[in-house]
Amino acid sequence: MIIVLPLVEEHNRKRIETAAAIRGFTVSCFADEQEALPHLAEAEVILGQSAALAENAPRLRWLCTPSAGVNQFTPGCFANPEAVLTNSSGAYGVTIAEHVVMVTLEMLRRQPEYGEIVRRREWRRDLPVRSIRDSRITLMGTGDIGQETAIRLRAFSPACLTGVNRGSRNPGNLFDRIVPQEQLDAVLPETEILVISLPGTAETFHMLDARRLAMLPDGALIVNVGRGTVIDQKALEAELRAWRLQAALDVFEQEPLPAEDSLWDCPNLLIAPHVAGNMTLPYTRNRIVELFLEDFENYCEGKPLVRQVDLKRGY
Amino acid sequence: MIIVLPLVEEHNRKRIETAAAIRGFTVSCFADEQEALPHLAEAEVILGQSAALAENAPRLRWLCTPSAGVNQFTPGCFANPEAVLTNSSGAYGVTIAEHVVMVTLEMLRRQPEYGEIVRRREWRRDLPVRSIRDSRITLMGTGDIGQETAIRLRAFSPACLTGVNRGSRNPGNLFDRIVPQEQLDAVLPETEILVISLPGTAETFHMLDARRLAMLPDGALIVNVGRGTVIDQKALEAELRAWRLQAALDVFEQEPLPAEDSLWDCPNLLIAPHVAGNMTLPYTRNRIVELFLEDFENYCEGKPLVRQVDLKRGY
Repeated sequence: MIIVLPLVEEHNRKRIETAAAIRGFTVSCFADEQEALPHLAEAEVILGQSAALAENAPRLRWLCTPSAGVNQFTPGCFANPEAVLTNSSGAYGVTIAEHVVMVTLEMLRRQPEYGEIVRRREWRRDLPVRSIRDSRITLMGTGDIGQETAIRLRAFSPACLTGVNRGSRNPGNLFDRIVPQEQLDAVLPETEILVISLPGTAETFHMLDARRLAMLPDGALIVNVGRGTVIDQKALEAELRAWRLQAALDVFEQEPLPAEDSLWDCPNLLIAPHVAGNMTLPYTRNRIVELFLEDFENYCEGKPLVRQVDLKRGY
Repeated sequence: MIIVLPLVEEHNRKRIETAAAIRGFTVSCFADEQEALPHLAEAEVILGQSAALAENAPRLRWLCTPSAGVNQFTPGCFANPEAVLTNSSGAYGVTIAEHVVMVTLEMLRRQPEYGEIVRRREWRRDLPVRSIRDSRITLMGTGDIGQETAIRLRAFSPACLTGVNRGSRNPGNLFDRIVPQEQLDAVLPETEILVISLPGTAETFHMLDARRLAMLPDGALIVNVGRGTVIDQKALEAELRAWRLQAALDVFEQEPLPAEDSLWDCPNLLIAPHVAGNMTLPYTRNRIVELFLEDFENYCEGKPLVRQVDLKRGY
């Protein structure tokens, strides 16, 4: 078993080693994929997020990526075509939900502008602010991230939390209502805050295009913590530069966002360098290891893996 | 009746005028105290936040300040010593609680540093972040602000929400436990996030002094949205410059914070120019008017006013 997990703590390494030993596996830990590559000849199970690991492990039977997104993996990238892929969906909801609440409040409360005021050592207090309270909020995506976000936003007494998904399931009854994806157009005109946590797939590509962006009311805030390809970035930039919409983006059509991209100095936009859900929070690393060990037991028992990814679907 | 309320909307003005007319009062609205001063000779009831209004209204019987804090009023500032003062405590909890959650997340998630990274158009993602989840949080002050803050923080699954107040009352059971103020010293060593919403009184002056700051564990975050005098600001600055504590301050010992104050470029500090609870949120203005009209009915009925302030106590 090969583990390539940045920042992994001693206690998490021990947990994996203990569980593996019981099942007769030996564990090799590496800080990055370059170190791991020469040691993949016999690897049966890998916890790591690089497609190069899959490409160079001929005996691989299961790869678990510590990421939620799987865009780096393609059906053809596995040296052993029988190998299965799982993701760590479920490890990032807590940290991404905190990011969503933070940037939502920052934009509603004019925090980027107050930051400039404070940098100039000014004492200005009169910028009109807005509140989550009584706001109409729509969440595109009602998975782990959408649910953890809904739990936190609920405590701020929004007017309405609408979940948009492909079925009509209302997970945990966390949403005031669930609207099927085909009826997205009906929801947008009454959405003041739009939170996107959708994966990057062919189906979600430019789901928020110029036509749909135009349906949002003046001043609406878009928070994207899913994948950048869900939004037509040029169309969004036009709305931001027209001072019609606001956005907080953690993900972009191209990452890293090129240094010359015009988005960097776009008004009404708060940029984060894809940090909402990275692995720098210890809680997230603990969850990644817990979820991996859960599916490791399933793997050893010959049971279906809980977080198996359909590479054709893309999640 | 004299109303001096900045930014007051037509609908709120109408609500006051309608209620006043029923009780036989005429209403004069002014944008600021300078405009109002020449019209105070007959004023019986004033909604306004300046002590100059109290000083210049010989027939005043009741002044309601739209602020929660009453530091600008002294027992001697009323031309009519029989006049009573009420405040608008209860109007600011929602907006201040949003500020507390925002700055707490900004500090835990290294947002000031990520702001610098983004300004340099860098794509750096490796700063270790922290979470409200599993954090031990202490709230000094369990009034409206402390309660609204507790409701919101609870949704982030903290390890423990401890309220500190002068009694042992646990309002709404919102706190995991209530600790009386005399036992504050016992709570500080296990406090990772300390939220202060205390008024500025003789009793609260430098309640958080060098000795108590030293009791907080390394890396603890202090959020002050009460009054600046509660903290020994110089002692706090020393802890911040030693990279031992973090703070997000909305209030200061002297306001405006002087342009030459060394706090402006202090590390590990997020400064806000006393904006957590100002009147720029429409919801707050609505609440101020609602609370005023509630006590206006009490006033007309000869009943005790709900939000009467004891000027000797200071709240």
